[in-house]
Amino acid sequence: MSSDEALTPTDRTKFNRYPGRGSYERAEIDAIIDESLVCHVGFVEDGLPVVIPASPWRIGDWLYLHGAPKSRLMAAFADGRPLCVSFAFVDGLIMARSAMRHSTDYRSAMLFGTGEAVDDPEEKARVLMPLIDKLSPGRAELVRPPNVSELAVTAVARMAIREGSAKIRKAPPTMVEPDAGWTPWTGTVPLSIRAGQPQPTEDSNDRPPPILPRWLG
Amino acid sequence: MSSDEALTPTDRTKFNRYPGRGSYERAEIDAIIDESLVCHVGFVEDGLPVVIPASPWRIGDWLYLHGAPKSRLMAAFADGRPLCVSFAFVDGLIMARSAMRHSTDYRSAMLFGTGEAVDDPEEKARVLMPLIDKLSPGRAELVRPPNVSELAVTAVARMAIREGSAKIRKAPPTMVEPDAGWTPWTGTVPLSIRAGQPQPTEDSNDRPPPILPRWLG
Repeated sequence: MSSDEALTPTDRTKFNRYPGRGSYERAEIDAIIDESLVCHVGFVEDGLPVVIPASPWRIGDWLYLHGAPKSRLMAAFADGRPLCVSFAFVDGLIMARSAMRHSTDYRSAMLFGTGEAVDDPEEKARVLMPLIDKLSPGRAELVRPPNVSELAVTAVARMAIREGSAKIRKAPPTMVEPDAGWTPWTGTVPLSIRAGQPQPTEDSNDRPPPILPRWLG
Repeated sequence: MSSDEALTPTDRTKFNRYPGRGSYERAEIDAIIDESLVCHVGFVEDGLPVVIPASPWRIGDWLYLHGAPKSRLMAAFADGRPLCVSFAFVDGLIMARSAMRHSTDYRSAMLFGTGEAVDDPEEKARVLMPLIDKLSPGRAELVRPPNVSELAVTAVARMAIREGSAKIRKAPPTMVEPDAGWTPWTGTVPLSIRAGQPQPTEDSNDRPPPILPRWLG
């Protein structure tokens, strides 16, 4: 379920360049989060920037992550430090007549906020299951649920989706006056993430899992 | 050309968990950089973390980025602030019998350092061309080169590849004793970035550009 609200622009999320590419719509931001299998979490440690990849998932107005309890990432989420979480997809290569008009089609999102730990084992178990369904719809019901000792060695944390924005470019290449006479191929080469043939383990059953339509060729 | 050296581990790049997944080999780090169409650049602004996506390319021992001259990203590269640049690919969904053994195959890299501006217009023009060839091999020779005014409105910056590491997971799902009796499909669903049918502009010539083998189905 995505919100149909928009986030309120702030000093650090206002668009200075290409405002036409920017959006504060939750529906657009949520769609990028929901499609992402990886996000990049930035935080400050001893005054220095650290950016760590993590597997994001969303439940309503919350972005969730999990990790090793003693990891720098989970510590930064648990201790309430300021965070910046970024998401990006490159959807196409934009090939223009001139070198400088080459570009990419992309969708990106950026969230700012602070994290909080999810410590209650029952809540942890409950919020982790949608991540399984994000990999393959309906799968959470088919797999062995977490037990107490597994939950104890996995940290879960979340951040409210409150401040942030999306930025989307989707347009053909631009031609400019000095390009006259140059005639390379011009256009867009679309790129997307695709699933290959599932590779079962030897002891697997023979019913391959549902794959999300966006990953099908 | 990739270096056959390895980076020296430092306090912030040493591996605390899963050291078997970690690498300081330049060949592995360079391969991840060279395949990435997007990286995530982290820096500190007014004490707060910012993570911005950018299009990376590499020439020898240097990571290059470009952007709008007044952007926060290019300012952070030009003024010598500490940076952390992250790269990540999700190569597969790992589907285990138990919820908590689900995972992904991935390749990630992280670089630390400081940036410097590339200000000389001739050097800018020269170092930008390999980015064109990164999108499509041989293309740099076919397109109109940058002119003086185009170079003036594009900032280019670089960071030495000196401190960093790669982290790679590639393994089938793990089964554990309590999984006995649970029989979902188990295995790996490979994921990769693929090119779709090139979409020419109306005034394009009819010779579609070479597409890198890694993006072909």
